[in-house]
Amino acid sequence: MSTPTTLVALLHGPDQPGIVAKTAGWIFARQGNILHADQHRDMEGGEFFQRIEWVSAGGDTLVEIQEFHAFAASLGMKARVARSSHRAKGAIFVSKADHCFHDLLLRCQAGEFAGDFTCVISNHADLEVAAQHYGLVFHHVPVTAQTKAHAEARQLELLRSSGVEFVVLARYMQVLSEDFLTKYGQPVINIHHSFLPAFAGGRPYHQAHERGVKLIGATAHYATAVLDDGPIIQQDVARVTHRHSVDDLVRKGRDLEKSVLAQAVRWHLDNRILVYGNKTVVFD
Amino acid sequence: MSTPTTLVALLHGPDQPGIVAKTAGWIFARQGNILHADQHRDMEGGEFFQRIEWVSAGGDTLVEIQEFHAFAASLGMKARVARSSHRAKGAIFVSKADHCFHDLLLRCQAGEFAGDFTCVISNHADLEVAAQHYGLVFHHVPVTAQTKAHAEARQLELLRSSGVEFVVLARYMQVLSEDFLTKYGQPVINIHHSFLPAFAGGRPYHQAHERGVKLIGATAHYATAVLDDGPIIQQDVARVTHRHSVDDLVRKGRDLEKSVLAQAVRWHLDNRILVYGNKTVVFD
Amino acid sequence: MSTPTTLVALLHGPDQPGIVAKTAGWIFARQGNILHADQHRDMEGGEFFQRIEWVSAGGDTLVEIQEFHAFAASLGMKARVARSSHRAKGAIFVSKADHCFHDLLLRCQAGEFAGDFTCVISNHADLEVAAQHYGLVFHHVPVTAQTKAHAEARQLELLRSSGVEFVVLARYMQVLSEDFLTKYGQPVINIHHSFLPAFAGGRPYHQAHERGVKLIGATAHYATAVLDDGPIIQQDVARVTHRHSVDDLVRKGRDLEKSVLAQAVRWHLDNRILVYGNKTVVFD
Amino acid sequence: MSTPTTLVALLHGPDQPGIVAKTAGWIFARQGNILHADQHRDMEGGEFFQRIEWVSAGGDTLVEIQEFHAFAASLGMKARVARSSHRAKGAIFVSKADHCFHDLLLRCQAGEFAGDFTCVISNHADLEVAAQHYGLVFHHVPVTAQTKAHAEARQLELLRSSGVEFVVLARYMQVLSEDFLTKYGQPVINIHHSFLPAFAGGRPYHQAHERGVKLIGATAHYATAVLDDGPIIQQDVARVTHRHSVDDLVRKGRDLEKSVLAQAVRWHLDNRILVYGNKTVVFD
Repeated sequence: MSTPTTLVALLHGPDQPGIVAKTAGWIFARQGNILHADQHRDMEGGEFFQRIEWVSAGGDTLVEIQEFHAFAASLGMKARVARSSHRAKGAIFVSKADHCFHDLLLRCQAGEFAGDFTCVISNHADLEVAAQHYGLVFHHVPVTAQTKAHAEARQLELLRSSGVEFVVLARYMQVLSEDFLTKYGQPVINIHHSFLPAFAGGRPYHQAHERGVKLIGATAHYATAVLDDGPIIQQDVARVTHRHSVDDLVRKGRDLEKSVLAQAVRWHLDNRILVYGNKTVVFD
Repeated sequence: MSTPTTLVALLHGPDQPGIVAKTAGWIFARQGNILHADQHRDMEGGEFFQRIEWVSAGGDTLVEIQEFHAFAASLGMKARVARSSHRAKGAIFVSKADHCFHDLLLRCQAGEFAGDFTCVISNHADLEVAAQHYGLVFHHVPVTAQTKAHAEARQLELLRSSGVEFVVLARYMQVLSEDFLTKYGQPVINIHHSFLPAFAGGRPYHQAHERGVKLIGATAHYATAVLDDGPIIQQDVARVTHRHSVDDLVRKGRDLEKSVLAQAVRWHLDNRILVYGNKTVVFD
Repeated sequence: MSTPTTLVALLHGPDQPGIVAKTAGWIFARQGNILHADQHRDMEGGEFFQRIEWVSAGGDTLVEIQEFHAFAASLGMKARVARSSHRAKGAIFVSKADHCFHDLLLRCQAGEFAGDFTCVISNHADLEVAAQHYGLVFHHVPVTAQTKAHAEARQLELLRSSGVEFVVLARYMQVLSEDFLTKYGQPVINIHHSFLPAFAGGRPYHQAHERGVKLIGATAHYATAVLDDGPIIQQDVARVTHRHSVDDLVRKGRDLEKSVLAQAVRWHLDNRILVYGNKTVVFD
Repeated sequence: MSTPTTLVALLHGPDQPGIVAKTAGWIFARQGNILHADQHRDMEGGEFFQRIEWVSAGGDTLVEIQEFHAFAASLGMKARVARSSHRAKGAIFVSKADHCFHDLLLRCQAGEFAGDFTCVISNHADLEVAAQHYGLVFHHVPVTAQTKAHAEARQLELLRSSGVEFVVLARYMQVLSEDFLTKYGQPVINIHHSFLPAFAGGRPYHQAHERGVKLIGATAHYATAVLDDGPIIQQDVARVTHRHSVDDLVRKGRDLEKSVLAQAVRWHLDNRILVYGNKTVVFD
């Protein structure tokens, strides 16, 4: 006899009468027990969004997932279904700045994530010992302008061979090419600083300090071909004054990056994020 | 032919399999169209909570409401159903401090609330002209220790005769008796300051200043017999430093009181607050 | 015998040894009593900033102010000195949106500002009665593309003839020309929405909603020739989710605009804002 | 020739005319260069507070410190003077919860603190390897009701023998006796959760969840004989909803504890905290 499994479906499509009743009815008819159901209707776009989590009555859950996909398709909905028991395997891409790296791995150790990191890929060797200390495989893949295509091919091979299901760019200072993102085809979460107003060019914290901004921010998003412009997952800001030096801004920026990225990873692993066009619906 | 009406149900009761499917199915069977549905399951208490909003297919909505109540009861659920088109009538109780009074009425004018204030009751005459300027009836009901019972009887009469469905205590500096609250039997929303740590006794802002707290707060809640201890609806805090005088704390407190109370009133009028025991579930 | 007056100086210039001792010594030598003194040294630029507030020992304060200016000049510093007892006269420019208008005037009535509004200038007549209700003179100055130069000349005349010392643009939907700002020559405080990322073009709240941003913001700044780009005084943000409609974003934006603009006006009237290049140092 | 040293003085005492000029003049007369000076006058208590930081002209700074103490005493002020170049040595007390422990040590490694941790004292052996990984000495000092006095004597000996100048209780689950605090005589910084309203008794997160609070908080303070009631250094809160389980509250509480405790330690090591009675003045 198989142990009951919990399933989570994220679905969206054109709104239609009875849609809530139909999905709930489908699950109830299979003797599933709905734990959470959250719906959203975009009034402007006429789109329906739902996250629904239920305890399967047993049987082959892979079959149940297939059947749910077919059911959703019959309603004109796109669906993604995950088993809650499945702990997704992730990779951390990192350069030299290690604050997000340590933060993510300590949270993982503390049991805050419904997934696990299995390897670290870096263009520098600095964090090799630290990664091993956390029990992770460390891959040093140097990147230069000349070797970039080669390096990305190597990274792709490493991700595929170890079955990595999502990547977190934990202050990875290299831009991933559109080609890499397309070939990998799995979610890649990135973190970057955000300012009001936005600053183009380098040394943004210096620019923010010079401009006398009163808030600095960070944004976590899914990476897309357009740098720093994918669907936004989470954002936060911190207050600064003239008393804060550029170093203070950088330090406060690190704290923001840690907490915003960790929140994005947590939501991703809890299957709470539905991507729709260039935006997200986060069922928190 | 009757115009379609939107209904909102807040229901709760012991969790059970199929409950989501059953409520959605009940509405679908009547050709209603669910606009929003939000469920919550309290894992510790085994209690199920739901807010569900749907466009009725037409017909007599009062009958539909009665039938929904019967349906909910058949599932062992307690339900409260409101018509979205219904704009509840409210009264503001106020003393001399007028910041929440103006804030609520300007927001009402700006169309921020799904209800209307119709009268103002005060133990002072100061705000009579202002109330009339907003187009409200003003009742001056003085209160002394000796006349309190009499004054409450008068207030009750005013509320009942004008069909007031909820009361907002907008810095009303009198404690309403348990007897009054019981007899009135409708929701009464109150706002009070909150501190970490809490301070007993008078002049709390002076105490907070003396203690050097770094945060001051405000809490909106439904009034119950126990002063300042009913189900919490909303809370917020503001940061203070030694540079802030007691007057600054009081001013910041006013801003908190305004925004927290307005948010509580908005949620109440949107039928987003489900009271359960001494807590609330706010479907925001 | 003259009553003692409190003076506030804001000064800045190239940092130099002994500058704190010299200003404090200058005041002490005149038997003034320093109430507050706050210094800041910009490490990157080598610039010194100070706000110093003292009770004058009496005598002619206009002479004392002149002498302080001369003293600051002798140190190579630029200074601005104000008497705390002086309540600056301000004008509110407004169009149809009235949330900042009411907020500022109610705060003024509540004694939150160290200054007073004396007149309202609007390109629409809608708020005439409300302005008069607050006891203010209302000037209706319509503006069209054709009449803009003429309208600005009229506005300038109104400001000058009534000795208005600062202007607050409380959601005034017209851009003031560089010519107007130069001729007026006094501080003009503006409020505008801010987003992460920034959105060009019209209907920013719609764009923010479409982009799925998780934060919306507002920025108060001194108006300069470059629209929305003068020295930033204050900024704040509010959290939004997919559950919030465009209307909710607009409503939350109104609340941000009110509180951020009021804070900027308060600091301005307390002589806490030192403008340096395109940034501010706020001695809060 | 000695290298110039930066000194920081925190002083307070009854307010008096000329006090700012006198301290600045004292430093200027010794050819010191003031980097920062921040004053505060408690209007209610008539007390004057100052933090002043200056580059000494050279010579024996220990003599200069002694002389400053004498000078402050001559003004009726209490003073504490530190050399900025001095990196204070600290100890971390910890039990099993390790979030603050890792957070403090990673920040220390990242150069965020103007001091260093040299040893870890714990009533459990769990964090021995981790402490050594950070290069710290680890002392396992078990504590039971019977051995408490003995354990505290041992802790005191460890602190004294290694010249530890401050202690951070990083979720140390034992109450330090008044006797221990008196004998140690150096600053001890503690962190604890805070709620609105406050909850007495055990399992506060369960109580907060049951009560339906909308905010949870954390407070860092100097430990005194009265548990959780010493001078408050920093406080912060996080928003929670009914969607958050008790586990979520505990996790959010950990994040608050980390950031609030780290900020308190940073301010302490920057000599920014002046303790006065049971409150602090934080010159941030």
